[in-house]
Order: sequence, then structure tokens, then C-alpha cells
Amino acid sequence: MTHPDPGALWRTWADRCETTLDRILPADTVAPQRLHAAMRHATLGGGKRMRPLLVYATGTAFGIDAAALDGTAAAVELIHAYSLVHDDLPAMDDDALRRGRPTVHVAFDEATAILAGDALQTLAFELLCEAPFEAGVRVAMLAALARASGAAGMVGGQALDLAAVGHRLDTDGLRTMHRAKTGALIRASVHLGALAAFADTDARSALDAYADALGLAFQIRDDILDVEGDPALIGKTRGKDAAHDKPTYPAILGMQASRTLLDRLAADMDAALDGVAADTTQLRALARFATTRAH
Amino acid sequence: MTHPDPGALWRTWADRCETTLDRILPADTVAPQRLHAAMRHATLGGGKRMRPLLVYATGTAFGIDAAALDGTAAAVELIHAYSLVHDDLPAMDDDALRRGRPTVHVAFDEATAILAGDALQTLAFELLCEAPFEAGVRVAMLAALARASGAAGMVGGQALDLAAVGHRLDTDGLRTMHRAKTGALIRASVHLGALAAFADTDARSALDAYADALGLAFQIRDDILDVEGDPALIGKTRGKDAAHDKPTYPAILGMQASRTLLDRLAADMDAALDGVAADTTQLRALARFATTRAH
Repeated sequence: MTHPDPGALWRTWADRCETTLDRILPADTVAPQRLHAAMRHATLGGGKRMRPLLVYATGTAFGIDAAALDGTAAAVELIHAYSLVHDDLPAMDDDALRRGRPTVHVAFDEATAILAGDALQTLAFELLCEAPFEAGVRVAMLAALARASGAAGMVGGQALDLAAVGHRLDTDGLRTMHRAKTGALIRASVHLGALAAFADTDARSALDAYADALGLAFQIRDDILDVEGDPALIGKTRGKDAAHDKPTYPAILGMQASRTLLDRLAADMDAALDGVAADTTQLRALARFATTRAH
Repeated sequence: MTHPDPGALWRTWADRCETTLDRILPADTVAPQRLHAAMRHATLGGGKRMRPLLVYATGTAFGIDAAALDGTAAAVELIHAYSLVHDDLPAMDDDALRRGRPTVHVAFDEATAILAGDALQTLAFELLCEAPFEAGVRVAMLAALARASGAAGMVGGQALDLAAVGHRLDTDGLRTMHRAKTGALIRASVHLGALAAFADTDARSALDAYADALGLAFQIRDDILDVEGDPALIGKTRGKDAAHDKPTYPAILGMQASRTLLDRLAADMDAALDGVAADTTQLRALARFATTRAH
């Protein structure tokens, strides 16, 4: 292992992402100040930066410099940030707090939150246009990010989630919803890292299987932590999902079967990475984090 | 003149745009149906399609086939459609009707309207990725469309408009706001047509001056029609701007000076097109329409 402490490396990647975002977001001293301030509030200073980490972990596995991946990593995070701003709106999940801070429509106002989310989405595509790869690679990245973000991906998943209110989802319905709502952008993060590295079709296909399992593992672990996580570590009260009657893996499968599924996904991810001719150390470490994390 | 009746040609372009949009929008029989139905409601069956017409008029002026411009024209219209959906939301302009039909949040619900707008924006970029031009041209188009749509363009203009509520804008403030809110996408429509045609720097610069004047002319004519247009033709009651205390050119400059400015813009547009070595017939006809239209 090149990096005995993945945490330290991941922090340097998260810092790179923060620096890139701070650089490319418009200054809140320039008009329209309120819009710019809201975009910065929504994006800077928080989160695990999981999607950027996946871009860095995938690209560097093939020997690409982290610096060449900065714009791509930040672009994926911008899409994630915009989706949180819109999901938190009163007409959607109506959340007042995110990462211990007021959500954008609370700190600013609803109109500004809608516009800030809109502009963050646009900025993701604008930034990716300038990534330091040949034009054909950039177009492939842009197309993949768009597919993952739109009606067939993240936004479609949020719509499926809204449509499920008051209904009982079965395991297939839950899987389909999560695969779109959060899975698509996780898969895109890995895919964009692989495109940056000119990974061949076989490697891309194995990485896609890895990312698909990773997205599901993240969700199941999230659901489990909501039942039995340490509130001080997860940063919220336990039992929120049950209180809101949200469909979760523990609720549908039971806790034991959810754990068994998580173990199987861990094995699936390792097996998928066995087929990738690259230094997959960090991707494996991210898989372990996804399946065992306490926060 | 190749086409003695520009109206007939414009109708074929608007029809091409409608056909393209109908083809690329997801079917409302496929899940999530409500999201897809809202996207279609927001986009199909209405509007002058001015921005697509500008893409077609610019590209075909240089001999590009209309068929090659379909995706680009539809992409620009998708950005316009998404902006209308979000602008109509209760937290923004709170409009219940658009083109005589219920707005998206009225016909569906607010959450669906937010998501439909989001997905229409994404679809614009996804569609442009597939335009039939070499990758370098597509990246230039994507970057131009993103710049025109985001915080430095359309969304920033809407934020400036919101920030102006309760203040008196002067002519400069009004010009800056409109140049961003509606002008940026009009300029982008012409610019994308020029990029598709590999127009040289001089031609692109002249076309940009034309498009800048066109955007302003459209706005001034809109403001004038609100004062003295035929309600049956403009499709709304007169005097809405004054009733909402909206800053307009007639309100700030007076009606006579607004007309004089419109005449000057018409002359500016003709002069700008004199410097473009292409068949500018339709671009000149669009300029005449912008400055003299009754609806």
C-alpha cells in the first residue's frame, strides 16, 4: 500500500475539492451578491466529498495526477450540492438544517435557493467543459454526467421517491429508486474518473459494477446507522427514517438480512476490482468505508 | 430573397423544433410518469420558439442544413423552458397561467415543477453533447450555453430582477438586468448557430453585436406592447407591468424615447449584419419582427 492511512490521502483530496470549489464559485462581493453567497453557502465547508473522492480514487488508480482531476471532482460535487439545495426546499423535503447549518432557503429565501441550485447545476457543466482532457473525452464526460443527473438518473430518482409517499415500496422498488436518486451520480463519479484515465471497456465495466454495489452499500449502511448509529457521530437523531415512515432496507428486509446484503456487496466490490488492472487500493478502502462506517 | 415569406420558413423551423423536443423528451407513459408529463407540459405546444429560430437563421445563413441544427435549437429552447417553469413558481413570480395554459406547478405541483425544471436544464446539455459536430465544436457550444444560462447569465439576471423589487432601476441597471436575464440566451442562440457554421471571429463578433441589439429590441418592444398592444394579439391584459410597478423602458425613458431607441437598434442590427459574409435575409427579417411585432 502506497498510502498506509487512507484518511490522510482522502483529506488532501477533499481539500483539493474545497480549494477548487472556492476558486470557481463566483465571489459574493460581486452582483448578484445574494445569489453568489447562497451558491457558496450550499457548496463550501462541509460534507464527506464522497463523489469527488471517487473521481480521485478512480483516476489516480490509473496514474492520472490528482491536479488533472480537480475540475471533474468539483463538477460532480456541484451537481450533488445543487440537488441538496432543491431537495431541502419546503415543497420537497422541507429541511431547515443540513450539516448543522441552516439550509439555503432558511439562510436566504426560497427564490434564492431555487436560483442557487439552478446556477450550481449549470456551473457543473461549465466547469467540466474546461477539464484538461481532449475534447472527445470531455464530451463523453459531459454526456455521462448529464445522463446521471437528469430524468433518467438523480432527478428521476427524487421523483420516484416523491411518488412513493404513502405507498409501500418493495425491495425492487426501493432499489430502483436509490439506484437513480443517489446511485447514478456515484456511478458517474467512478465513470468520469475512468474516462479521464482512458480506462478500457473491460475496466470501465468492472468499475461500473463496483460503483453500483458501492451506491447500494452506502444506502444500506445509512439506513442501518439511522437505526443504531451513535447520534454524536451521525450528526442527527436516530430513528428519523422510521418516524417519517421512510422505506428502508432494515424496515423491508430486517436488520440481519440487511447486514448479510452489505457483506455480499463488500465481496462483490472486491471481486469487481480484481478485474481492474490498476492500483485499486483506495477504491477498496472506500468500499470498506462504505460498508463499515460509523458516520 | 430565397424565401419571400419568412413566416412560412419560420413555421417549418418551429415545427422542426417541436418534432425534436417531442422525440427527445421522455415519454409520460414511462416512470416517473408525473415528472415526464410535467417536462412535456412545460416544453411542447407553444411559444414563438424565437431562440431556436435564431439558431436556424444563423446556421443556415452560412449554408448549414437545418437538420444539423435541430439538437442545438432544441437545447436552447429547453433552457428557456426550464427557466419559465422556475420563474413561474410561487416563491418567484407566482404565475398561474402561461400561454393560456396552467403553469407547471398549478397543473402538477410545486415539487414536480422544481424537478421538471431541473431535468429540462440537464436535458439541454445532454442533447447538445450529441449534436452532429466535431467534439471541439460541441465543447465550445456547451461552454457558451452554460455561461449564458448560469450565474453570469440568465439565472444571475433573474436574481438581479428579484433584487430590484422595491428599488428604482435606472437605464443602466435595467439594461444590465435584461442583458443577463433574457439577452444572454438570445446571444447564445446566435453564437451557437455561428459555432455550428465555423463562422470566423469577425463574423461571430458582428453577429454578437446583432444579437445584443436584438435582445434589447425584443425587451423594449415587449414593454411598449404592454402599454399599447392589442390584448387579443398579445394574449394578456395591457398595463400588467405598470400594475406590478415593474421597471420598463417606457416608464424610465418615456414612450417617445423608447421608440427612438428601437429605431436606432434596428439600424444597428442592419449595420452589424452588413459585416457578415453570409445570407443574412432571415436574420434581418427577425430583426424587423423584433422591432415592429404586434404580439
